[in-house]
Amino acid sequence: MLKVDLNSDLGESFGAYTIGNDKAVLKYVSSANIACGFHAGDPYVMHKTVQTALENNVAIGAHPGLMDLNGFGRRNIKISPIEAYDITVYQIGALAGFVKALGGKMQHVKPHGALYNMAAKDKTLAEAIAKAIFAVDNSLILFGLAGSELVKAGDAIGLRTASEVFADRAYMADGSLMPRSMPGAVLTDDAIAIKQVLQMIKTGTVTAADGKEIQVLADTMCIHGDNDKALNFAEKITAALQAENVAIKSFMAD
Amino acid sequence: MLKVDLNSDLGESFGAYTIGNDKAVLKYVSSANIACGFHAGDPYVMHKTVQTALENNVAIGAHPGLMDLNGFGRRNIKISPIEAYDITVYQIGALAGFVKALGGKMQHVKPHGALYNMAAKDKTLAEAIAKAIFAVDNSLILFGLAGSELVKAGDAIGLRTASEVFADRAYMADGSLMPRSMPGAVLTDDAIAIKQVLQMIKTGTVTAADGKEIQVLADTMCIHGDNDKALNFAEKITAALQAENVAIKSFMAD
Amino acid sequence: MLKVDLNSDLGESFGAYTIGNDKAVLKYVSSANIACGFHAGDPYVMHKTVQTALENNVAIGAHPGLMDLNGFGRRNIKISPIEAYDITVYQIGALAGFVKALGGKMQHVKPHGALYNMAAKDKTLAEAIAKAIFAVDNSLILFGLAGSELVKAGDAIGLRTASEVFADRAYMADGSLMPRSMPGAVLTDDAIAIKQVLQMIKTGTVTAADGKEIQVLADTMCIHGDNDKALNFAEKITAALQAENVAIKSFMAD
Amino acid sequence: MLKVDLNSDLGESFGAYTIGNDKAVLKYVSSANIACGFHAGDPYVMHKTVQTALENNVAIGAHPGLMDLNGFGRRNIKISPIEAYDITVYQIGALAGFVKALGGKMQHVKPHGALYNMAAKDKTLAEAIAKAIFAVDNSLILFGLAGSELVKAGDAIGLRTASEVFADRAYMADGSLMPRSMPGAVLTDDAIAIKQVLQMIKTGTVTAADGKEIQVLADTMCIHGDNDKALNFAEKITAALQAENVAIKSFMAD
Repeated sequence: MLKVDLNSDLGESFGAYTIGNDKAVLKYVSSANIACGFHAGDPYVMHKTVQTALENNVAIGAHPGLMDLNGFGRRNIKISPIEAYDITVYQIGALAGFVKALGGKMQHVKPHGALYNMAAKDKTLAEAIAKAIFAVDNSLILFGLAGSELVKAGDAIGLRTASEVFADRAYMADGSLMPRSMPGAVLTDDAIAIKQVLQMIKTGTVTAADGKEIQVLADTMCIHGDNDKALNFAEKITAALQAENVAIKSFMAD
Repeated sequence: MLKVDLNSDLGESFGAYTIGNDKAVLKYVSSANIACGFHAGDPYVMHKTVQTALENNVAIGAHPGLMDLNGFGRRNIKISPIEAYDITVYQIGALAGFVKALGGKMQHVKPHGALYNMAAKDKTLAEAIAKAIFAVDNSLILFGLAGSELVKAGDAIGLRTASEVFADRAYMADGSLMPRSMPGAVLTDDAIAIKQVLQMIKTGTVTAADGKEIQVLADTMCIHGDNDKALNFAEKITAALQAENVAIKSFMAD
Repeated sequence: MLKVDLNSDLGESFGAYTIGNDKAVLKYVSSANIACGFHAGDPYVMHKTVQTALENNVAIGAHPGLMDLNGFGRRNIKISPIEAYDITVYQIGALAGFVKALGGKMQHVKPHGALYNMAAKDKTLAEAIAKAIFAVDNSLILFGLAGSELVKAGDAIGLRTASEVFADRAYMADGSLMPRSMPGAVLTDDAIAIKQVLQMIKTGTVTAADGKEIQVLADTMCIHGDNDKALNFAEKITAALQAENVAIKSFMAD
Repeated sequence: MLKVDLNSDLGESFGAYTIGNDKAVLKYVSSANIACGFHAGDPYVMHKTVQTALENNVAIGAHPGLMDLNGFGRRNIKISPIEAYDITVYQIGALAGFVKALGGKMQHVKPHGALYNMAAKDKTLAEAIAKAIFAVDNSLILFGLAGSELVKAGDAIGLRTASEVFADRAYMADGSLMPRSMPGAVLTDDAIAIKQVLQMIKTGTVTAADGKEIQVLADTMCIHGDNDKALNFAEKITAALQAENVAIKSFMAD
């Protein structure tokens, strides 16, 4: 039976600030990427989010980001590989504290925002992050953009990796995501997005912007829950996967 | 043979800012309390400090503080027991990431500054901190002020605890430290401070400000390395302990 | 004609985090207390909020808070008078930068949260804050709790002050607010709250919890806009004031 | 009589952390660039530094940096022009609060570290910063790298600008600084550095790495005071300037 993991970024609230709709999203996903206090999240939010994930049988992952709360970790910061290593170790460790305190087990690590994007292309950053994860716990699974340097670095060091695909983004002929600045970068038609997802899962291919079919690994897919539209899409995509007999499950059960 | 642990607060540098003389102090201490990024320290500094402690065979402890870098964790912040629990779990976890990545083992947790002082007197804060440590790793040793609520809370929950004494502080008849605002609170004469230490270790007592001999547990003693005077005292006290056949060692060897 | 100023805390969003409904509240208030980046707000949010206040002819005030974003400035931090002075100067200055850049004029300063509450009771903190405001710009109006040390300190140093009252809080016989921990501290019946407001404005008195009528100055009143209920109350209170011929206006026009 | 302004980055301490030797450097410089709390500095340090500068008759400037205390503002962060505008307004305003409270007048603005370097090459960032300064106070002087986009943007908007040169850095044929990664980028021989400074001030030229003489404006020169070597060089350069009858003075006296 075909399967796919659905992941979502959770625990991004901070102090008096609430963001996202964690409760609603947890109904659809099999894996939760939990913010670790650098780009979002704080100790209290992390505690509560780990607890809620455990209660919902959703696999837990660390979602380390750049030290940039005001930019929500979305602005590129020119960090050294050593800094990338250290902020990764720190944030995995911090989240692991809550996972251990609550009797759970951490499944994966998915870098956030600018860290994810920079590590997709920058080999030395990617290697530093993979090395950090391996050093803290070599049973952790590294989530990275399908075909990225990050996934390659994880594979090279001996980590299990999960290739991430996007339902609502157009792909270029080289397998990269079409930049958001280009027209058509975001698929706004839910039906087309769902068709793309099913193709990726069932055939391991995606139709690039130039019409060419290229190969893509679809181990896990990111779901958003920021607004009603996103939640509505989450419901549609899970319904479509069920209809096609694609199991939605994390890697914990494997 | 009598023994005592000597501990020191290390890894309190931050980014471009250097504080303390970690290298010099590591020659004298058996246990290192390493800052975890809230009141001081950052991922890079934590990495380097854990590494240096391991190289010097100094036992490693987390030194969690209040989220107050500008106040160096020395200003009381009215936090709830839940917040105390969560910041403790977070910081122990973060440091544990580096300890694990570098192949070491964490020995203890010693709260820092205002968190240490508040938890010495506030039972509910003390219990929250003890509970947090126990939940993350019940083999960790809790360092607290001798006779404090923090040590009592650690004992009550089943943690091993270490009672901390101060060489250079005068004691009140109830076993508490004389407030710094009172004259004579700090012993400025090294010889008197050393005499007090030896009495505490050898007889389990200290002569309080009113002349009365009171009982005090002296499992571990804090050494500072901020300046030449502090380092000079560290040298004197270790020499005095050796002369009196008091072994300086951490709890890892027990 | 009777008059009262209605003020509200605005500009408390931060980066990707949105809090409050500034647009809606601006329809009701005459004065805006704008967060300055310590407990809430950031440079971008401050810029936008000053601009929006100017566009709505709402008078602008600085809303300085404790350096505690994670606690939203609501947790008491034991700061020295010097620290209170310095964080007040810094935050007024920062907001004044935007006011000047946008061609406006700052009307007032209202400390936020724990800083407001601590300064209501602590004379030395109150004096430090009043001194800071006076030093930066002695034409600024200090907003403080009616009858508080803060208002007294402002009066004493020669600042114009505005006494703030609360529509929905019960008062004690000594003029202080009933602590939230006591039953009846918050008036949940809008009609009773509005009656209290009108009494305060028209007679300069409030009926304390023990039934005694006490004097209270009602120069300005705080309105919240966090949720629909708050906005609904804002609408009711402004309607009631208009019906009673009480003008709602800031101190700029005086 | 020839003249040059000597400037230095001051007030970069933070909380318990001390950096630099402000007292010693103030003996040599005519202008102080004071950190504003983003990359370094805090309200207390700013207060004290403004006071010390005033006492030493040293002209005061704001030294705004990126919001990156851990990286000391030295890491490039991909910010938008709007963000550059807003962080510049905020930080100038915050420092202006202290300058006003202490009865002084601000002379200039010199962006720090990565913000300075990015704005030297990026026209839109440069324009945003120049626009921010002009909006807050169009009498402020903009300090920027000689020949940079930042100086050009300042000139274009109508700000007075000061072109900054470096005594100890080698220049490329296009007037830019030789990247630190290239051999010979830093002049380690004090005599050669002093010769370069005098040539720049007296002839308005510098000998580039390829031997060609190029034109360079030398309005102000940066002096460091981080260590004994730096202070020793400050003493040598001021002595050399005096010997050559070059007056060291700020722009306030003009």
